Amino acid sequence: MNRRFVILTEGQTNPIRAKTASCVIRYCPDEVVALLDRGHAGKVSRDLLGVGDVPIIARLADAPEAKTLLIGIANPGGLIPDAWRAIIVEAIERGLDVVSGMHDFLADDPELAALASKHQVRLIDVRNNRLSRIARGEGLREDCLRIHTVGHDCSVGKMVVSVEVTNALKARGYDAKFAATGQTGIVVEGDGYPIDCMVADFISGAAEQLVLDHQHHDIIVVEGQGSLFHPSYSGVTLGLLHGCQPHGMILCYEVGRTSPLGLEHITLPPLSTVRRLYEIAAATRRPCPVIGIAMNSRLLTKTEAETERKEMQRLFGLPVCDVFRHGAEPLVEAVLRLKAIRDQLVP
Amino acid sequence: MNRRFVILTEGQTNPIRAKTASCVIRYCPDEVVALLDRGHAGKVSRDLLGVGDVPIIARLADAPEAKTLLIGIANPGGLIPDAWRAIIVEAIERGLDVVSGMHDFLADDPELAALASKHQVRLIDVRNNRLSRIARGEGLREDCLRIHTVGHDCSVGKMVVSVEVTNALKARGYDAKFAATGQTGIVVEGDGYPIDCMVADFISGAAEQLVLDHQHHDIIVVEGQGSLFHPSYSGVTLGLLHGCQPHGMILCYEVGRTSPLGLEHITLPPLSTVRRLYEIAAATRRPCPVIGIAMNSRLLTKTEAETERKEMQRLFGLPVCDVFRHGAEPLVEAVLRLKAIRDQLVP
Repeated sequence: MNRRFVILTEGQTNPIRAKTASCVIRYCPDEVVALLDRGHAGKVSRDLLGVGDVPIIARLADAPEAKTLLIGIANPGGLIPDAWRAIIVEAIERGLDVVSGMHDFLADDPELAALASKHQVRLIDVRNNRLSRIARGEGLREDCLRIHTVGHDCSVGKMVVSVEVTNALKARGYDAKFAATGQTGIVVEGDGYPIDCMVADFISGAAEQLVLDHQHHDIIVVEGQGSLFHPSYSGVTLGLLHGCQPHGMILCYEVGRTSPLGLEHITLPPLSTVRRLYEIAAATRRPCPVIGIAMNSRLLTKTEAETERKEMQRLFGLPVCDVFRHGAEPLVEAVLRLKAIRDQLVP
Repeated sequence: MNRRFVILTEGQTNPIRAKTASCVIRYCPDEVVALLDRGHAGKVSRDLLGVGDVPIIARLADAPEAKTLLIGIANPGGLIPDAWRAIIVEAIERGLDVVSGMHDFLADDPELAALASKHQVRLIDVRNNRLSRIARGEGLREDCLRIHTVGHDCSVGKMVVSVEVTNALKARGYDAKFAATGQTGIVVEGDGYPIDCMVADFISGAAEQLVLDHQHHDIIVVEGQGSLFHPSYSGVTLGLLHGCQPHGMILCYEVGRTSPLGLEHITLPPLSTVRRLYEIAAATRRPCPVIGIAMNSRLLTKTEAETERKEMQRLFGLPVCDVFRHGAEPLVEAVLRLKAIRDQLVP
């Protein structure tokens, strides 16, 4: 199935806000027809997002082959910008399906729902998939290795690291699965649960279900959400961590990030504290070490990144890499070392 | 306003499951007409719940003065037992409002909604009050002392301790407010937010809003939810803790509780670990000590309870009491000591 996406990032085509757009361009390149941002029409995605050669267009009419409009941002609070409404209306009228990962569901909007019905198109709210189950802490198979990405903040690359590690494991012949927990990951992978929009009592239950769904694979890499250190989202992060009960964690951070996203009045702690707290928090369910560090060095030069990498390796005694600069191999090696140890323990 | 409750606990009139019933009988005694549990008709609430002299009846017809049917249980997952549906239908047909704290909303049930409309009664879903705001970590007044009850497990008495401490503070002339975060607390207090049914991204935002709503008081006591050590609900607990940013915590535990409620295959850690983990978790937002311990000694004799109390005081160097056996004074003293210290610090 090719969804032939036009990705809507109007006025927000930058690497932080247009995270959904960037990742879909990166991981589903054959399905992306165009980016829609009239202020940058004529450029390509690489110019603004650093990835892909997708043309940026000014009007839906410029991509007549499109079949789906994808809302390409992941903004705090998850509301669709007012200015985008007219574009969504036009997309529906042109016969396009609309895919959204916002907290506000398109299908709950009477006008859009009526219009979609009239034009026989689908409004697909990726986050509209709530489970009502509490975690039981039972039924998890110990012969499926569970890896979980965690971060010192939101939007540092947990999803990208999860996909890259999974793909690298697959390339080496392992039966690995990317277990998506957020809107972008779900669009990329085609399955998963939107953990951050579960009813609070069911966060861990949904995370546990995600593991139960996929533990016939040998290795699953569960995408992390939020951060224990982000004042808005720490509950999501802990509920997910306790629900999926990982055997090993990969700690993701962005070099130079000193405050939680959007909250400049707060200071993030040093990474050594971050690592310790994740290990303490995980251990209330089961002991689980951080086995590697994924650095996001997008703001650094190549030389600076190499210096940072060596310093972090020395400080933490763990493999460290930027999956885009260096590939995911150092993290894959760490996963396989953990697997070898566990394979000795599990009959 | 007197809601004249008949409280429905059919087949579940015991202190753990009928927690909502027990608390409403305790704190709103003038509003409770009867308990409905046909298997125990003729007894009074004290016989089964240890509180109040509310008659237990077999049929709604036995309480013609009632104005409201209150669903009196708080069960895991929050679903209404099938067998109760006929009773709810009858209540509506008799002209009673129905108050429910279940995750499944009465108002979302087409048949019940139509019936309620026909009979001009209200279906009041206490949990149907979702906020869509993320926490900002700003705007909290430092001259309002924030106390938060936390527990080693669910259903150990956090709500009761919050109410008792608030009432004891008020009795001594302080401007204190009980900030309710759960279905029962909201029914008792008449306001608050149902934190455990917020959309996951908004847990901390709702907790923060609760503080913003009430920080014109000198002291607010924010009811805790779940437990960092309950695999199903730890995300709710952490999101609430980080959203309300307490200055001091009261640690609640039940003597003899060794497993999380409903999960006998899991062992709870020692209370010293519980205390330390809450202090570590709180400290990612602001340093916040456990200032006192509330023990729930309902399974102990008076002598056993006194032994336990002394031992815990010795081990923790903190005031310890069972608010029902000993009153809340030792905890109130701890709150006031913290207030005196903070009043020196805050101009």
